[in-house]
Amino acid sequence: MNGARSLVETLLAAGVDTCFANPGTSEMHFVAALDQAAGMRCVLGLQENVVTGMADGYWRLAGKPACTLLHCGPGLANGLANLHNARRARSGIVNIVGDQATWHRPHDPPLTADTEGFARGVSAWVRTSARAADVGRDAAAAVQAARALQGQVATLVLPSDASWDDGGEVAKPLSVLPAPPVDGSAVDAVARVLRSGGKTLLLLAGAAVQEQGQALAWRIAQATGAGLMADYLNARVSRGRGRLQLERVPYSTDLAVAALASYEHIVLVNAKPPVGFFAYPGKPSQQHAPGAQFHVLSRPDQDAVAALRDLADALRAPPLAIPDPGPRPEPASGAPTPEKLAQTVAALLPDQAIVSDESVSYGRGFYKHTHAAAPHEWLHLSGGAIGDGMPVATGAAIGAGGERRVLSLQADGSAMYSLQSLWTQARERLPVTTVILSNRKYAILINEYQAVGATPGPSAMRMLDLGNPNLDWVQLAQGMGVEAARASTLEECAALMAASFRRDGPFLIELLV
Amino acid sequence: MNGARSLVETLLAAGVDTCFANPGTSEMHFVAALDQAAGMRCVLGLQENVVTGMADGYWRLAGKPACTLLHCGPGLANGLANLHNARRARSGIVNIVGDQATWHRPHDPPLTADTEGFARGVSAWVRTSARAADVGRDAAAAVQAARALQGQVATLVLPSDASWDDGGEVAKPLSVLPAPPVDGSAVDAVARVLRSGGKTLLLLAGAAVQEQGQALAWRIAQATGAGLMADYLNARVSRGRGRLQLERVPYSTDLAVAALASYEHIVLVNAKPPVGFFAYPGKPSQQHAPGAQFHVLSRPDQDAVAALRDLADALRAPPLAIPDPGPRPEPASGAPTPEKLAQTVAALLPDQAIVSDESVSYGRGFYKHTHAAAPHEWLHLSGGAIGDGMPVATGAAIGAGGERRVLSLQADGSAMYSLQSLWTQARERLPVTTVILSNRKYAILINEYQAVGATPGPSAMRMLDLGNPNLDWVQLAQGMGVEAARASTLEECAALMAASFRRDGPFLIELLV
Repeated sequence: MNGARSLVETLLAAGVDTCFANPGTSEMHFVAALDQAAGMRCVLGLQENVVTGMADGYWRLAGKPACTLLHCGPGLANGLANLHNARRARSGIVNIVGDQATWHRPHDPPLTADTEGFARGVSAWVRTSARAADVGRDAAAAVQAARALQGQVATLVLPSDASWDDGGEVAKPLSVLPAPPVDGSAVDAVARVLRSGGKTLLLLAGAAVQEQGQALAWRIAQATGAGLMADYLNARVSRGRGRLQLERVPYSTDLAVAALASYEHIVLVNAKPPVGFFAYPGKPSQQHAPGAQFHVLSRPDQDAVAALRDLADALRAPPLAIPDPGPRPEPASGAPTPEKLAQTVAALLPDQAIVSDESVSYGRGFYKHTHAAAPHEWLHLSGGAIGDGMPVATGAAIGAGGERRVLSLQADGSAMYSLQSLWTQARERLPVTTVILSNRKYAILINEYQAVGATPGPSAMRMLDLGNPNLDWVQLAQGMGVEAARASTLEECAALMAASFRRDGPFLIELLV
Repeated sequence: MNGARSLVETLLAAGVDTCFANPGTSEMHFVAALDQAAGMRCVLGLQENVVTGMADGYWRLAGKPACTLLHCGPGLANGLANLHNARRARSGIVNIVGDQATWHRPHDPPLTADTEGFARGVSAWVRTSARAADVGRDAAAAVQAARALQGQVATLVLPSDASWDDGGEVAKPLSVLPAPPVDGSAVDAVARVLRSGGKTLLLLAGAAVQEQGQALAWRIAQATGAGLMADYLNARVSRGRGRLQLERVPYSTDLAVAALASYEHIVLVNAKPPVGFFAYPGKPSQQHAPGAQFHVLSRPDQDAVAALRDLADALRAPPLAIPDPGPRPEPASGAPTPEKLAQTVAALLPDQAIVSDESVSYGRGFYKHTHAAAPHEWLHLSGGAIGDGMPVATGAAIGAGGERRVLSLQADGSAMYSLQSLWTQARERLPVTTVILSNRKYAILINEYQAVGATPGPSAMRMLDLGNPNLDWVQLAQGMGVEAARASTLEECAALMAASFRRDGPFLIELLV
C-alpha cells in the first residue's frame, strides 16, 4: 500500500475517524485513500481556518482528536489562527499538512513555503515524514502527541511522494502518555493554606470547570470557605442547573483587580496567574493583590479532577449538593440588551445544549443571567484570536454526534473572519443556531480606543465602523444554504430561536443590537 | 510625540500614504495617530488575508509600497498566505503588526504568539521596535527594505508600549537601495549565444513582461530569431493591442515539456528555470529539454529593463514595432466555454483595464484569445496560494488611483477564501467587476485526482464538490453591499459586463459555467 493509505489506516486504528479537510493537489493521494478505507468521516471546509476551528470544537466535545487535511504551507498558514486558539484550549488535533514531494521541493515551485516553520508556533509536536515507510509510524506518534498532556496540536507534514510511494506500513496505536502525576506535597501545602483561614481563591481552569471538577471544587469551597472563580477564557465550562454558579475573572483589568483584591492566597487548579488580555499604560499586567501568594495545585498539563479529589480527601470535605439556581427565567421582550438576551437564552436553551461564545464585548456578562438555564456546555474563544466561534460551533456539533443543539453567539465583526463555516453547517445539516449580534461596528475597539483616552475622529472611525455598507447576514447565510431571518426585538429573536431549536439543520438569526 | 505618531509621520515622509488595515486593541494608538496626521488613506479589510492581498495588488499598480496594519501574531497569521503570494510577486509591502507591550508579553496573555516566527517565512526583513524612540528609524528602514531589490515584504512588529510611549522621533526617508547592477559579462555571454544560431528562448519575468521590457525583448527576438515566452505566473503582464502576443510556459508538466523541447538555450530574464507547480510520480521536476543550457541575463532582483536594453545595444537590434494582433473580436454567445468567455472579455475590456486572474484551471487558455483586446494589465496569482484574486483586484483598483476598471476573473472555490474583499469594494466604491466562474466544484482538484490515475469515488467527491448546497454568489455579494446578477449564457454575461464597465462602483456577475 502507499503511504497515504497507511496514514488513513493508522489513524482509524488509533480511533481517529473524523477528518476536517481543505485539500489541494498534493493531498490527492490522501483523498484517494479515503475511497479505499472505510470509516473516515470527511468534512469539507471552504477555508482552512474553518477546518482547524472545527477540529478544535470537535475535540472539546468528543474528547478525542480529529485530524485535519491542509494544503502546503500557505494552506496551513490560513488555519494558524484557530490552531493558536486550539493550542490555548489544549485541544488535541492531528494536523496533517501535505507538501511538495521531497525531490521537487529543492526546485522551489511557487507554492513552496516554510511549512514546518509556520507549524512550530502553534504545535507541540512537528514532524515531516521522509518516506512512505515512515508515514504509519509517524501518524501513530502524532495521535499519541495529540492526546498527551490534556491535548496538544501535533502537526504531521506529508510530502506528496511519501503519500504516493509504495511501502506504507500501518502502525499500531501507541498508548496514551500519562499526565504528570498530582504532586502529593502540593496537595498537602494547599490543604494547609485552606485550613489556615487566610482568604483564599480556588482559580479553576481546564477539567476543573467541567462537571466532575466543579462538584469537587464545591465540596472543598464549602468545607473551607474558599472562593471559587474560573479563568476568563475556558475551552469548555459545564453550566446551568446542577452546575456551579461560577463567575469568571473579568476581562477588564480594573474589574479583575477589584475581583481579586481581597484574596491573600490564590490556588491554581490548571489555571495560570491571571493577567490582562492586553496591557494599558499605567495599569498592571498581573491582576492579583500585591502580596497575594500563589499555590499550584495542578499545572495545565495535569489531571485537575485527580488533584481536586486528592485535595477534597485531604480536607475530608463531605459530599454536598450544588445549590439550585432558582427558576428558569421567562424570555425577555423589547429592545435587545446583553442582559435580556442572556435571559432569553436561559429561558429557551434546550437540555444538554452547547454554546459557542464569540460574542466578544457584548457577551461579557452573559454568565450571570444564564445560571438557571438547562444544563449545557459553554465554549470560549480560548486564544482570543477572533474567527473561532462559528468553526468551533460547527465542529462541536459533529463532536457531540449531531444529537445536541449548538447555539453560536457571534459578534458580527468576528463572524466575518470565518463565515464560510455556514456552508459546512448546511452541507452536513448540523443542528446549529447562529445568533449574529449585529451592531455594525467593532464595538470592542471603540471601547479600547476610548481606553486610550480619546474619542475616535473620522479617520479612526473608518477603521472601527462596519456600517458602510451594512452587512446583510440573512443574505450571507442564504448564499451559503443556511436559512436565516432578522430580528430587531427580543420577542422576534425568541420566536426564531425556539423554532430553530425544533429543527434538524442550521439556522441563522441576525439580531440587530 | 508618541511612537505611533512618529510611525505615521515617517511613513508619510517616505511616500507611504495608503494603509490597508484590520486593527485590534494593541493597534489603537496607531489608529489614533491617523486622526492627528493628515494624508494617510486607510482602507479597512474584514479579514487579514484581504488586507495583505490588497497591499500586494496596490504595489503592482502603484509601483510603491502601501503599509498594512495587522493585529498580533494570529492576525498576521491570517494574512500570511497573501504575503506568500506577495513575496513571490516581489511586491513591496511595509507590513506592520501590532503586538503585546514589551513588559506584558512575558506574562503570556492569550493572544501572545510567535509573531516574528510567523513573519519570517514571508518577509525579507523583520524587525521588532524595542521602544518608542526607535519606531521612526525602524519604519524608515522598513520602507527602504520594501522598495529594495524589485520589491520585498518588510515586517515591522510594533509592541503597544513602543506605540504609546512618548519619545517618538520622525525619521527621514532612506534612499532606495540600487538593484545589483547588470553584469556586462552576462550580457556579452547571452549576446554570443544569440549570435551562435542555436535555438534559444528568452524566458521573461518581472519587469521584462511589462511594456518597456516587451518592446526591448521583441527587438532582440526579431534581430536574432530567439523565441519569447513568459513565466506561467507573473505579478503583472502588459497585454492587448500594442503589446507582445506572449504565451506563458504551460501549467501542465507535459505541455510545458513539449513547449520547451526544442530549445537548446534558455536565457533567463528575471525568470527562474521552469519547474512544475507540483511533482507527479514519474514526471520530471524541471521542464527544459535534457541538455538545454541556461544563461542568466538578469536575476529576479535585478533591473530587467536595463539588462534587456544592454543586450539590445550589444546586438545592435534595431527599433521595431510590435505587430498588430488583428481586429478586436465580437462578444461570443451561447453556453460559456473558456475560449468564448475570453473572446467576450477581449471584445469588451475597456482601455487601460486591469485583469486580476484567479480563474485557476478554467482560465489557463485565456491569453490566446485576448491578444486583440484594448491595452490592459494582467495580474496573476503569483505564489499559487488561492485567495489572492479578489484582494489583489481591490488593492489594484486603489493603486491605479480609482481611474481604471478592474476585471476580477475568479473561480468559485478560491473566491470563498477571501470573499470579504467585496465589502471593501463596496465601502470604497471601487471600479471592480467580479466574474465568478461558478462550476460548483474544485475543478482543478478533480483534474489532479484523475492525474493520480483514478476517478473520484463518493468519499473523495465529497472533498471536491461545492454543489451541496450551491453557493449563491448574488446573495453573497448583496450581503456585502455589492450589486450582483447571475448569467448562464455569454449574451447575458456580456450585457452585464458592459453595463458594469459604465458604473463607478463594484458589480459581481455569477457566471454559471
